Amino acid sequence: RYSSEVRTVTLIPGDGIGPEISAAVQKIFAAAEVPLQWESVDVTPVRGPDGMFGIPQAAIDSVNKNKVGLKGPLMTPVGKGHRSLNLALRKEFNLYANVRPCRSLEGYKTLYDDVDVITIRENTEGEYSGIEHEIVDGVVQSIKLITEDASRRVAEFAFQYTKENNRSKVTAVHKANIMRMSDGLFLHCCREVAEKYPDVKFEEKYLDTVCLSMVQDPRQYDVLVMPNLYGDILSDMCAGLVGGLGLTPSGNIGLNGALFESVHGTAPDIAGKDLANPTALLLSAVMMLQYMGLNSHAEKIQKACFETIKESKYRTGDLGGSAKCSEFTNEICRKIAG
Amino acid sequence: RYSSEVRTVTLIPGDGIGPEISAAVQKIFAAAEVPLQWESVDVTPVRGPDGMFGIPQAAIDSVNKNKVGLKGPLMTPVGKGHRSLNLALRKEFNLYANVRPCRSLEGYKTLYDDVDVITIRENTEGEYSGIEHEIVDGVVQSIKLITEDASRRVAEFAFQYTKENNRSKVTAVHKANIMRMSDGLFLHCCREVAEKYPDVKFEEKYLDTVCLSMVQDPRQYDVLVMPNLYGDILSDMCAGLVGGLGLTPSGNIGLNGALFESVHGTAPDIAGKDLANPTALLLSAVMMLQYMGLNSHAEKIQKACFETIKESKYRTGDLGGSAKCSEFTNEICRKIAG
Ligand SMILES: CC(C)[C@H](C(=O)O)[C@@H](O)C(=O)O
Ligand SMILES: CC(C)[C@H](C(=O)O)[C@@H](O)C(=O)O
Repeated sequence: RYSSEVRTVTLIPGDGIGPEISAAVQKIFAAAEVPLQWESVDVTPVRGPDGMFGIPQAAIDSVNKNKVGLKGPLMTPVGKGHRSLNLALRKEFNLYANVRPCRSLEGYKTLYDDVDVITIRENTEGEYSGIEHEIVDGVVQSIKLITEDASRRVAEFAFQYTKENNRSKVTAVHKANIMRMSDGLFLHCCREVAEKYPDVKFEEKYLDTVCLSMVQDPRQYDVLVMPNLYGDILSDMCAGLVGGLGLTPSGNIGLNGALFESVHGTAPDIAGKDLANPTALLLSAVMMLQYMGLNSHAEKIQKACFETIKESKYRTGDLGGSAKCSEFTNEICRKIAG
Repeated sequence: RYSSEVRTVTLIPGDGIGPEISAAVQKIFAAAEVPLQWESVDVTPVRGPDGMFGIPQAAIDSVNKNKVGLKGPLMTPVGKGHRSLNLALRKEFNLYANVRPCRSLEGYKTLYDDVDVITIRENTEGEYSGIEHEIVDGVVQSIKLITEDASRRVAEFAFQYTKENNRSKVTAVHKANIMRMSDGLFLHCCREVAEKYPDVKFEEKYLDTVCLSMVQDPRQYDVLVMPNLYGDILSDMCAGLVGGLGLTPSGNIGLNGALFESVHGTAPDIAGKDLANPTALLLSAVMMLQYMGLNSHAEKIQKACFETIKESKYRTGDLGGSAKCSEFTNEICRKIAG
């Protein structure tokens, strides 16, 4: 899909530790001679004509032009007139599938070995519809919106992803015993799509059952697909199994483009001190390379990253080490240079 | 609240392994000379005037009269006209707080030690409102209903419970960053109630954050209170940490009564074979005794149960042992008899 010419991708460095981990990724990409250039944009919210704060037009234009972007953590502004910028970006570009792989890192010990699951989350509707009302005083309803189109689209994505990545099973996660119509529709779409992929195993599980069995033995799961909120929960839970959000990447995929992001916080307490761990953003950038078909660069960078984490000497503080962000980054570059 | 006279409690043995684990509990209660008698009722659904299947009137009358009940697992009937009987019971008696303690059992190894958390789940509304519509073809909405009354009531319950049980912290679990109005209202009520309990620590956490940090270190949590669906998920996840639903009790508490139940399945494959583990139902019955103020009986039974599980020789198949249900039960009785 992509030729070998130098492409431009949008970079949203983000807040807090965002700029330094973004710089780390840029340095590592340079060391690996990745044939792409960065277009850095600022997404500090600007007030629109309706008085609401939103993403600046220049940032939107950049992503629309480049179709691919990498994003560091963003502060969620507090107060009236603000909505989460993270969500605004997913909505603006109709990034309908959120892919979050969680893998155990060799040599980095948690309670769990051999975790290798991928959550695929519907990213545009469900519990995140934003539609809420106060019916009468003290009675509020929030609307969970499930559509056939969005459900089928993300189910298609999950099966296609599973096939393309030589994985074997898709688990649809739901509470259709309770939300018979909405989760029922989601499940119905998954079943229909499953029919078209006879080589991919398919199973259906209740969300509560998945939570229980995931912490008992994550190895029974492979690729999981689910409505928006369930994905929010399960992806974080799975990240917890392998060491947290500092180590797990995320990709938001749309019809016309994709945005890759680390989903940890901005860590203002350590910002600017060369202490942050760039791994989640780097692995998100690796997902981006895979998405763009730059597989050998992706592999080289990922390998160097994993090896560096394995050698505990280069670990940053969040992983119990004492290395600086720059030391970790330089070691990855050194390994890439061979 | 309760005198020492012999009180009657309703027993719903349930389906599958329900009758045998209920019999085990009855036997153990007899050995412990618990001053109560059982009124066993059948809840096989009967068709009402509206054509829908529901709980038989005799069962409803029994619970209304006795105010306290114990319930084994119920099969969820499949097909039109049926709704979950488990849910119907919670609704019928307005059992607004669902309490599920998850504790590590001494001597029974899982990945986690020292788990001791209690989830308190709003049990009457939220995502379980049952209100759903198909707006147009392929577009469904489910309504999450949050009311001030129900939120305050369960928050009050959580703080009161924490205080009475000499525990120290309540965590309100929410996604008010997404469902600003509904979860916002829930959170607001928790904050207001927290003010009245200066001796109880209070914190607020996002559901996804709790999921992530719970699997990393459950010891940071104590009592957690949350809307209906979040409780469904978190209680199962916590049960997974300590060995599953076969080991964890549950109580549904209302204004006028309470129903205690094991929340595992009916296990039809092993039903009637003397292979089931009665622990979850027994510990639910222990919660019932505590609720009724029969604390010394509760303690004696719980102690005998824990000690029996610790001696691996009496473990049933689900715990990796080869003891029969009756052997496990008899050993508990023997320990009680001293
Ligand atoms: C920041 C928050 C709005 C977001 C979400 O709820 O989706 C986050 O938890 C995530 O998973 O990306
Ligand atoms: C059986 C099912 C309807 C129920 C629920 O979703 O509440 C169960 O999972 C539980 O936790 O008691």
